[in-house]
Amino acid sequence: MARIVKKFGGTSVADMERIRAVAARVKKAVDQGDQVVVVVSAMSGVTNQLVGYVTEASSLYDAREYDAVVASGEQVTAGLTAITLQEMGVDARSWLGWQVPVHTTDAHGSARIEEIDTKLLEERLNIGQVAVIAGFQGIGPDNRITTLGRGGSDTTAVAFAAALKADRCDIYTDVDGVYTTDPRIVTSAAKLDAITYEEMLEMASLGAKVLQTRSVELAMRYRVPLQVLTSFEDLPGTMVVDEEDIVEQAEISGIAYSSDEAKITVEQVADRPGVSAAIFGPLADANINVDMIVQNVGAADNTTDVTFTVPRADMERSVAVIEGLADELKYKSVASNDKVVKVSVIGVGMRSHAGIAAKMFATLAEKGINIQVISTSEIKVSVLIADEYTELALRALHTAYQLDAA
Amino acid sequence: MARIVKKFGGTSVADMERIRAVAARVKKAVDQGDQVVVVVSAMSGVTNQLVGYVTEASSLYDAREYDAVVASGEQVTAGLTAITLQEMGVDARSWLGWQVPVHTTDAHGSARIEEIDTKLLEERLNIGQVAVIAGFQGIGPDNRITTLGRGGSDTTAVAFAAALKADRCDIYTDVDGVYTTDPRIVTSAAKLDAITYEEMLEMASLGAKVLQTRSVELAMRYRVPLQVLTSFEDLPGTMVVDEEDIVEQAEISGIAYSSDEAKITVEQVADRPGVSAAIFGPLADANINVDMIVQNVGAADNTTDVTFTVPRADMERSVAVIEGLADELKYKSVASNDKVVKVSVIGVGMRSHAGIAAKMFATLAEKGINIQVISTSEIKVSVLIADEYTELALRALHTAYQLDAA
Repeated sequence: MARIVKKFGGTSVADMERIRAVAARVKKAVDQGDQVVVVVSAMSGVTNQLVGYVTEASSLYDAREYDAVVASGEQVTAGLTAITLQEMGVDARSWLGWQVPVHTTDAHGSARIEEIDTKLLEERLNIGQVAVIAGFQGIGPDNRITTLGRGGSDTTAVAFAAALKADRCDIYTDVDGVYTTDPRIVTSAAKLDAITYEEMLEMASLGAKVLQTRSVELAMRYRVPLQVLTSFEDLPGTMVVDEEDIVEQAEISGIAYSSDEAKITVEQVADRPGVSAAIFGPLADANINVDMIVQNVGAADNTTDVTFTVPRADMERSVAVIEGLADELKYKSVASNDKVVKVSVIGVGMRSHAGIAAKMFATLAEKGINIQVISTSEIKVSVLIADEYTELALRALHTAYQLDAA
Repeated sequence: MARIVKKFGGTSVADMERIRAVAARVKKAVDQGDQVVVVVSAMSGVTNQLVGYVTEASSLYDAREYDAVVASGEQVTAGLTAITLQEMGVDARSWLGWQVPVHTTDAHGSARIEEIDTKLLEERLNIGQVAVIAGFQGIGPDNRITTLGRGGSDTTAVAFAAALKADRCDIYTDVDGVYTTDPRIVTSAAKLDAITYEEMLEMASLGAKVLQTRSVELAMRYRVPLQVLTSFEDLPGTMVVDEEDIVEQAEISGIAYSSDEAKITVEQVADRPGVSAAIFGPLADANINVDMIVQNVGAADNTTDVTFTVPRADMERSVAVIEGLADELKYKSVASNDKVVKVSVIGVGMRSHAGIAAKMFATLAEKGINIQVISTSEIKVSVLIADEYTELALRALHTAYQLDAA
């Protein structure tokens, strides 16, 4: 007997036929003797429709009311899933965030789970009842519904798995696992049997949309064994686990890319102490999230070029901030470019294998791809290149690191 | 300054444009200095869609899960209405049933309100905040969402008006008031300025679908001044009030009809004590609601005919029950007919005006309409006639009682 949390995303509960498939899958686990907690998202499309209503009502909406409106999507799916399980002879009931309760912060629209009271739930699980949890929602200190941000149902699932000390948390989605890179671009991309929390975290934050970043952080913190798999077929997915649980570590595990980048260069700015603070302080004040930063060594004329990347949507705003600093910074010009992509190779194997970065640079050079910015962390190397080279770079790197499926 | 509850039905909140019209109407009352409580239904069509999902999931669904699913419709409208009011500069917040809380019985799907805790609400009303209440819902003793049955938002509104000792409860709907009879059939039907609770109760239970019957009972019990009016125009509606508040009482106030009737006759049953109990006991056990009953005076052969009406949907089942009693009752035959309509004239004026019933029978006789069954109460006379005479009977009676609009 195992205790398992199973989370089903919007496409997995898109209509009653899909909900019946979900219920059948849950029934199978129950019949095997498992204790099952089901976490459901809203039917695909419903959350967007509800958000559409809210933004039509007001562009500056009250986040507390937004939460009351959009949380209703998961409420509907939870009730329907419980009824469908009952119809199949499985004892089940739905639980809304405020019923469990799932206590969160009061940051409406992007609340964080603070505590899950599992007493009632444990009692029901111990008598064999399936708990169907409305994902994405909780209750704030003001006794009002909160939501956890887009993709929040992943976090709900991992948080319940941690609170209930579940043996595993299965995240059912519309892809059958985590791939070495985007299979729509690199047809030889291979599904990974396992990946570490750290790698998954980099993959998630670098554009692989398979899991909400926060849910991976949470799984890593509480060491919740996570599985990413499809609800459309009966196949094992990708396990997200501790580093020591992966027997043989490849040089790198995956290659991610993000098109949500724009590059800004402040040219010939005076190379003096405090210039970085003078640039990045005002950007932070404007709530702009700066990612990669490169500052060239000062030139003979005592000026330097500072290059950095920001989310593409913030490019214009960032340029305006820099232009507002013209008198203070006395730079020559500011240039911006959103025709760039960030490509990253990721792997905990990097810690023990030398030359991972060198191989990346050589592979790109061989294809004539110019590297504009480089940044590294303990388990990843990222480069910014012109976005027209995205496919070429991904395929070349995938082959160079011997990731191509046999 | 007055304290007013305003309830808006599904067609009044059908889309964002209609919700903005609702908010504008509420703002006007707030600007006049009124304290306003708004009760909203689900957007028209939404409840039917949610009920459709539930019955698709299971024909024998868990009513607690049904409630969790269908209550979400009002949750969405309440949030959107609060946001729209805020956008217009009106302080407002939404309240779900469990947040107020609205305590109900545990009869999921058709719960009754037991107590409304108005403490929090009063505090907010006193600082000028509009309370937007999700109608139709409450919380049961099991800490789960309950719903009050179709049309339950009317009852929510009246219950809040009673609990908050409101000066008036306005029920906004898609008709502009209560009419002397159905204006789709009798073009000269007139809108009533006022009607008594007792009359409205008869009208509601006799097929005028303008208010949920239970909401009228509640208004009568707590003497809540009710107004039925349209949200599509800016016109006074019909006041539902105490008898003493109506200055001049007409002979009758309105003529209602109900097509949801079927007639069953048990022919030549032995005319002995206990025969009625032998017929109607088993029907009650089968949960069939018998309405009108007529038993003829016994014939020379010591048999009698017993005629009664039941809801049309229960006709076949009723006949089966009677056929099951054949050995015991020893009747000659059982006949059923659903081509009938019940027409009722209603008015508290009946108490002081003689000859109301006589005028009804004479009017129908004059048109050659045969009366099959008669039943009377203190303030109404109902007759069962062949349904092909519905329009003719309504028009003739409307003229006979001088109800035609000038």
